Amino acid sequence: MPDTNISKRQYKLLHSLQVKKYRKQHQAFLVEGEKSVVETLQSAYRVSELYCTADFAQNYAPIIETSATKVLVATANELKKGSHFQTNNSCLAIVQLPEPTPIAPLAQNEYALVLDGIQDPGNLGTIVRIADWYGIRSILCSPDTVDVYNPKVIASCMGSFLRVNIHYTDLEAYFPSLAAPKVYGAFLDGANLHEWSFPKEAGYIVLGNESKGIRASMASHIQQKITIPRFGQAESLNVAMATAIICDHVKKDTT
Amino acid sequence: MPDTNISKRQYKLLHSLQVKKYRKQHQAFLVEGEKSVVETLQSAYRVSELYCTADFAQNYAPIIETSATKVLVATANELKKGSHFQTNNSCLAIVQLPEPTPIAPLAQNEYALVLDGIQDPGNLGTIVRIADWYGIRSILCSPDTVDVYNPKVIASCMGSFLRVNIHYTDLEAYFPSLAAPKVYGAFLDGANLHEWSFPKEAGYIVLGNESKGIRASMASHIQQKITIPRFGQAESLNVAMATAIICDHVKKDTT
Repeated sequence: MPDTNISKRQYKLLHSLQVKKYRKQHQAFLVEGEKSVVETLQSAYRVSELYCTADFAQNYAPIIETSATKVLVATANELKKGSHFQTNNSCLAIVQLPEPTPIAPLAQNEYALVLDGIQDPGNLGTIVRIADWYGIRSILCSPDTVDVYNPKVIASCMGSFLRVNIHYTDLEAYFPSLAAPKVYGAFLDGANLHEWSFPKEAGYIVLGNESKGIRASMASHIQQKITIPRFGQAESLNVAMATAIICDHVKKDTT
Repeated sequence: MPDTNISKRQYKLLHSLQVKKYRKQHQAFLVEGEKSVVETLQSAYRVSELYCTADFAQNYAPIIETSATKVLVATANELKKGSHFQTNNSCLAIVQLPEPTPIAPLAQNEYALVLDGIQDPGNLGTIVRIADWYGIRSILCSPDTVDVYNPKVIASCMGSFLRVNIHYTDLEAYFPSLAAPKVYGAFLDGANLHEWSFPKEAGYIVLGNESKGIRASMASHIQQKITIPRFGQAESLNVAMATAIICDHVKKDTT
């Protein structure tokens, strides 16, 4: 098969979707990799164009048919050229950005995550995956948190973006409006998670930027500082690690 | 300053140390980044050559003098060319590989990690950092686990490699020789960590390869399967996340 199935215009579109500005302009983002693409096709998200190998098209024919997507069969080599990742070689989906939804109030005993300036796409992807593992439905992000539709975030969250509601909002404007639920924050000088328990009520857990932590303006809304106890000498724990450990405590304490 | 301080031969050496074969041949590895290089200079590791900017040489003169290293001042641009990472621009250290030490038996109540085929350098680096946070002194790795002296591992463990003993050994040959301590393994069908506690005694915790998990040959040495309970729909947790959560439980249960 000659490498001419994907036109120059299409390559340009695919590459442009690696950049937030163009994702906004086209109201679309990229999903790559067999597992994530198949999950996206089966979800409520709308796949507007599917680029895939003949094998992929054949293996997933019933799913592709149901989701009524524009399908373009291409070679693995072409898909690689259109992809952000060197390893992708069976499919690429252009997916419509979902309509923003209002932030839902927390249910009884529900905890949500709040990300104050997370910068690393791998960290955000991992945090979304952790939220999905622990059944946490919502993540509120400061406007300067890395875009969840960045291809690296989508790749590292392995389909979990389909199941967790992620909102970008001015956190400082959002939180003063809340008398309850309680707002917790991960600091180095808070209550020791090995000696303290999350109450069986709704709450928000704030995690801060990789190097600067939680901004002072956000910290002022935090009612309870919490800390993962340290037994050795590492200076810090990566924010995704901290999220995993905190979510594990939330579920252990409140389920 | 002209960009001619680092010779072609030296660039060749620096680049070669990105590859395990040459690290073995030269019995050396690379440490990059200010924090890690400074910590290495202050450790028992022997830095054989330090490449750094004039600023770095000045700022850390007392430390550099004490560690009696061969120092070569270079420009940030030169250091970048010799580096594995685009962001490194103040220092690069060539460090001698340490002599292999025998695996120490576990102390009372000591838990150690066992890695069966971890492939991703970022995962290994993060696991070493977690071990350092939780005061876990030893990690045993199968021979096919990624090399801890890989520059990506060194970068992601942020100096923690200096404080955790990492051994590569034939795990299946090592474990049958042990009647005790007990060997635990992370599986999807083990004891629920939210309902079960690690005993206050010594133990090994086995974590498996990112996609294949723990090999059957290693699984046969595991006396207790353990599981991080899932509350949502993510198919799996990344192995470094799982390690963080398990180490947190070990310390909470046994301290």
